Amino acid sequence: MSSKFGKLLTVSVFGQSHGKAIGVVLDGLPAGEAVDLDELNAFLDRRKPGKSPLSTTRKEADAPVFLSGLENGVTCGSPLCAIIENGDQRSKDYRELLDKPRPGHADYTAACKWDGCADMRGGGHFSGRLTAPLCIAGGIAKQILARRGVYVGAHLAAVGTENDVSFPLHPTKELFDSVAAKSFPVLDGQAGERMQAVILAAKNDMDSVGGVIECAAVGLPAGLGDPMFDGVENRLAAALFGIPAVKGVEFGAGFGASRLHGSENNDPFTMEEGRIVTTQNNAGGILGGITTGMPVMLRVGIKPTPSIGRSQRTVSLSAQADAELTIHGRHDPCIAHRAVPVVEAVTAAVLLDLLLEGNHGTF
Amino acid sequence: MSSKFGKLLTVSVFGQSHGKAIGVVLDGLPAGEAVDLDELNAFLDRRKPGKSPLSTTRKEADAPVFLSGLENGVTCGSPLCAIIENGDQRSKDYRELLDKPRPGHADYTAACKWDGCADMRGGGHFSGRLTAPLCIAGGIAKQILARRGVYVGAHLAAVGTENDVSFPLHPTKELFDSVAAKSFPVLDGQAGERMQAVILAAKNDMDSVGGVIECAAVGLPAGLGDPMFDGVENRLAAALFGIPAVKGVEFGAGFGASRLHGSENNDPFTMEEGRIVTTQNNAGGILGGITTGMPVMLRVGIKPTPSIGRSQRTVSLSAQADAELTIHGRHDPCIAHRAVPVVEAVTAAVLLDLLLEGNHGTF
Amino acid sequence: MSSKFGKLLTVSVFGQSHGKAIGVVLDGLPAGEAVDLDELNAFLDRRKPGKSPLSTTRKEADAPVFLSGLENGVTCGSPLCAIIENGDQRSKDYRELLDKPRPGHADYTAACKWDGCADMRGGGHFSGRLTAPLCIAGGIAKQILARRGVYVGAHLAAVGTENDVSFPLHPTKELFDSVAAKSFPVLDGQAGERMQAVILAAKNDMDSVGGVIECAAVGLPAGLGDPMFDGVENRLAAALFGIPAVKGVEFGAGFGASRLHGSENNDPFTMEEGRIVTTQNNAGGILGGITTGMPVMLRVGIKPTPSIGRSQRTVSLSAQADAELTIHGRHDPCIAHRAVPVVEAVTAAVLLDLLLEGNHGTF
Amino acid sequence: MSSKFGKLLTVSVFGQSHGKAIGVVLDGLPAGEAVDLDELNAFLDRRKPGKSPLSTTRKEADAPVFLSGLENGVTCGSPLCAIIENGDQRSKDYRELLDKPRPGHADYTAACKWDGCADMRGGGHFSGRLTAPLCIAGGIAKQILARRGVYVGAHLAAVGTENDVSFPLHPTKELFDSVAAKSFPVLDGQAGERMQAVILAAKNDMDSVGGVIECAAVGLPAGLGDPMFDGVENRLAAALFGIPAVKGVEFGAGFGASRLHGSENNDPFTMEEGRIVTTQNNAGGILGGITTGMPVMLRVGIKPTPSIGRSQRTVSLSAQADAELTIHGRHDPCIAHRAVPVVEAVTAAVLLDLLLEGNHGTF
Repeated sequence: MSSKFGKLLTVSVFGQSHGKAIGVVLDGLPAGEAVDLDELNAFLDRRKPGKSPLSTTRKEADAPVFLSGLENGVTCGSPLCAIIENGDQRSKDYRELLDKPRPGHADYTAACKWDGCADMRGGGHFSGRLTAPLCIAGGIAKQILARRGVYVGAHLAAVGTENDVSFPLHPTKELFDSVAAKSFPVLDGQAGERMQAVILAAKNDMDSVGGVIECAAVGLPAGLGDPMFDGVENRLAAALFGIPAVKGVEFGAGFGASRLHGSENNDPFTMEEGRIVTTQNNAGGILGGITTGMPVMLRVGIKPTPSIGRSQRTVSLSAQADAELTIHGRHDPCIAHRAVPVVEAVTAAVLLDLLLEGNHGTF
Repeated sequence: MSSKFGKLLTVSVFGQSHGKAIGVVLDGLPAGEAVDLDELNAFLDRRKPGKSPLSTTRKEADAPVFLSGLENGVTCGSPLCAIIENGDQRSKDYRELLDKPRPGHADYTAACKWDGCADMRGGGHFSGRLTAPLCIAGGIAKQILARRGVYVGAHLAAVGTENDVSFPLHPTKELFDSVAAKSFPVLDGQAGERMQAVILAAKNDMDSVGGVIECAAVGLPAGLGDPMFDGVENRLAAALFGIPAVKGVEFGAGFGASRLHGSENNDPFTMEEGRIVTTQNNAGGILGGITTGMPVMLRVGIKPTPSIGRSQRTVSLSAQADAELTIHGRHDPCIAHRAVPVVEAVTAAVLLDLLLEGNHGTF
Repeated sequence: MSSKFGKLLTVSVFGQSHGKAIGVVLDGLPAGEAVDLDELNAFLDRRKPGKSPLSTTRKEADAPVFLSGLENGVTCGSPLCAIIENGDQRSKDYRELLDKPRPGHADYTAACKWDGCADMRGGGHFSGRLTAPLCIAGGIAKQILARRGVYVGAHLAAVGTENDVSFPLHPTKELFDSVAAKSFPVLDGQAGERMQAVILAAKNDMDSVGGVIECAAVGLPAGLGDPMFDGVENRLAAALFGIPAVKGVEFGAGFGASRLHGSENNDPFTMEEGRIVTTQNNAGGILGGITTGMPVMLRVGIKPTPSIGRSQRTVSLSAQADAELTIHGRHDPCIAHRAVPVVEAVTAAVLLDLLLEGNHGTF
Repeated sequence: MSSKFGKLLTVSVFGQSHGKAIGVVLDGLPAGEAVDLDELNAFLDRRKPGKSPLSTTRKEADAPVFLSGLENGVTCGSPLCAIIENGDQRSKDYRELLDKPRPGHADYTAACKWDGCADMRGGGHFSGRLTAPLCIAGGIAKQILARRGVYVGAHLAAVGTENDVSFPLHPTKELFDSVAAKSFPVLDGQAGERMQAVILAAKNDMDSVGGVIECAAVGLPAGLGDPMFDGVENRLAAALFGIPAVKGVEFGAGFGASRLHGSENNDPFTMEEGRIVTTQNNAGGILGGITTGMPVMLRVGIKPTPSIGRSQRTVSLSAQADAELTIHGRHDPCIAHRAVPVVEAVTAAVLLDLLLEGNHGTF
């Protein structure tokens, strides 16, 4: 596996931050699906850096070039490959980092695994830049899902200890669109102000902060997912932990459910307009790994950006001795707000894969 | 996939709670590994119900029978199949449940998926009873790992809002053994008293409570795991969400990391007795999906047992109308303490699979 | 992977010839499918030994016991496990074989791989006996396929240099049934007489012979299978080479196509009763890895049984010296006729897996 | 899966014949492996068309561009992506083919599967051109294998009914190199003359011919591969059937073994210079799916090129009526000789994947 996920629809990511290009291969996309490139580019813009003081000033021209699988704007059934050529690279300062691994980064583990051969310029294959091809994959998946009435949206639920409100019981496409249109993707503008202040304060301190992203998917049928190890939670979690900096994934009430009583946590079933729904959604739309038909709700915990301007303690691999490290260059004081579309993208790709399986519970 | 996980070592679980037998097939186990059956049975005993007022009074004789793969107590290289025959079943009351899905259970999603054909007696394939074969798999994996100096241990970190202390920075085999020997698997006995009181109070209220389990693995080399979607976190999470009632998984500081600054969350590297270690372990032993050589640390959130004695609101599938449901029979007021060895088992099986891959970072 | 195959429907085989039991787990079977046990047992009887002088006199009571997945004769959606307990074992003579690997057997490679730990009594996990659980899997798949108008049949196409006639362009269920009803599964009775004479002559010579099996599947829709490496040929071949003694697999005209001109080998398309068909079927119903809607036709080459009564040259692993070996016990002078239902079984299981995927070419 | 294969090393092919580019992603390549680009280009040249009257006059500049995974000529551990931009396309005549599927081609099955959305210009994703990225993958694998003393070579064993001699019992790197250096890759020059005459005669007849390729791999350790469905034969066959036009795969004596007696087919073991070898190799170096340490020997049957200049019978999809078709453009009268390096490439990639697993028979 490594840099890919999916069963009938495989998403396969390649590239290093400062290599020639990064990209993605989508194998198993259904044929005949139009891809609206304006909509896709607007989606990619949501994760782009360089737009505000809240993120790195590094510019990335993330225009995808489609090498295969898309003809006249429509998928043709064979694997789709899209690439983004790299530019605006400043690789000069990475030699020090190869010797002095940055705390909280994959520098050290990459050195252990690939014995000094890894291309770690700009974070290499571990760079947050690799989330751009993920967004190409997810942006296409979102369009295909939307055509079937399935909508995926996310917002920044917390930065540091500042929290946004949560999604309502039944989020709508309109709500998702309104968050996506904001430069800072929150539901509650005042909470957003406080979060942005936290990020700017961290920036001024040459420090960084983490956050939490809440994601929802509406319009899914009941009965998706398989028991035990191939359920909706298993597959979403396996993919979501592939987003750099994710350290926790929970569904519905998640860890909070562990503090509830069964009588509080259990979602009562009821009839509503002829359909079976639950009156609350602590299950996050998933029971026994299988969708209930209620919105799938998940939360992802993002650690603070490990690249900070402050001097940090590390070791010199060549000297096998303690050392000091000061990271230069441009960094994001927080990546959680930029990761919002990435969480949507990964969620959408996994859900499309599940939908393509159809309901093989019966035949 | 469905009821199995693993790449070079596959764990494949089968059985329904009230069927003829439940069991597991382990495909890819290395040959020549002795399995100490006394040790394995002691491990299985840790998840067994019927031992105290804290769990269901239902008795389960979980004696595994080995059908293949183990000859003269030693693995022989071909797939190992172990089964547990079912007994002590009281299936009579399940007809009502097929029509009135229990809130918080898979009854409704199974009905949607398998169109009324699912065998849901006793929870069927979704029953917590299916964690017994998982423990056979994991108990064997633990023995093989221990022979290589890798130890996996867990404790009950919280019940409701009562918390145990956390594992120290470097947990030891001795610490794991001491927790495993306790009838209530906590580090701090006083916290354990408070947790047990919470469980008994819930029981008296005909209610249930959830909890959190912390698990650690020590002795792993640095460099295990692959980038992005096949890392240690991805593979552990995908498997751990297969344990019934798990709604959240986090590594290291997890969701807590999202509330920290980078300067706090980053684990400084330092030399210690000639080895590179970190002075704290917010990464949970994993950076970029790859092991650092520090203990792998994870936490799993368990929801409160959905089966409670209180009357609950649900629907009648046949009448397509709201209904009341009172679940009779014997239930666990909390399953989190019994799930502690299950989390160890799944963690051990995933880590053994990763270790069997060797370090193919270089060749 | 190892002893399993399949994507949405996984067939997982376990057991050693002289262990406690052999069996199979089917994960991903659709729910609500009735299994006619009489029909299944009749199918299993077709591979059973001990019925004539053409096969070993060893008796095997291949009565499957269903441990899970089948309730009241109907699949319930969770993994189906069926086992066959082993009996009539004569393990005493296998110690010599562990030291002196039988030519043409897996004794030597198993010794290399598992370093002396393999359980090779009776051939262990490599025994032809493991085809019994495969037939359970395939027998169930055949019933599910038949309910959708898809029929799989096979016959013995050759023994040594004696050949049966080939299937006609459009084989029918009735033809399959008539071959299946014969004690010696050929189309042309006279060819069958000659083949049986070849087998008996080999038996009298304390020798063995090989053969070829032709298998066909009718009723499949066009459009099954994916391009390049996940096509119908790739998946069938990968599974068919798992049948012990198979050394070649070909589709349609197969190797014979390499001796034809394009003008002969290309199958012209034509309209027939409003459907597009081909006037011949050198493609074996598969073009570009994808079904054409014509019968899928394949041939499997089976080597002569390696166990023969004659003295053979081998080595002593302990002495690391040349040695003589005489294999005692009961052997099949030919296994090709008994492998006919096994080829059907594997073909049916693979095709059911492909059908369960549905046509995800478009969505 | 679809257009990819491999377990620890995945080869993922993308592109259509007349799209913007074709390419391959190699995920799981070990780091630190130098890639000699001259050697790689020389390997790619072996499959290139346009070099003689024996193949199409179409020119293809197959210069690979490396987008990722290769830095300063050395693999860096992250996925390697290489592309070949398409040129020299003549797409104008393909509109007729969309309506009138070419006999023996995937036109019809692609139309069924993707409902008219497939990009079939130049054969689209089914084009033999997609073997160029396969050769990039295999050419890199060959270099990595050679560094470990494992060599893969192939020759054209037959064209029509003209046969080359077979590889000797122990082929050498030197023999492989000498065949690779020839413009027509045979062992016996006189047989080669006859084969070329057959090809030219077919060309003059506006027809085509098929052939057989024999491939060998030497230097492999004993014990590679897993039993039943994940053996060396299963994995090689699954990948080899992904090469366009392959209709048969056999190992060692293959189908010929079915015509032998056990006493002839069984390969006697003997000691030779302190090593256990067999005196003949009808097993093709594989027993029970596991390598014996003898050369792996396989043969692949290639059908005659379906594109021929003669008028052929087909149907009009739009008219749903019988039709005539004359294919214009440049075609190969035989592709078997050009497929020789492709078979080497796929074999090398599969064997490298197996070697990367190491011998996990024991731990």
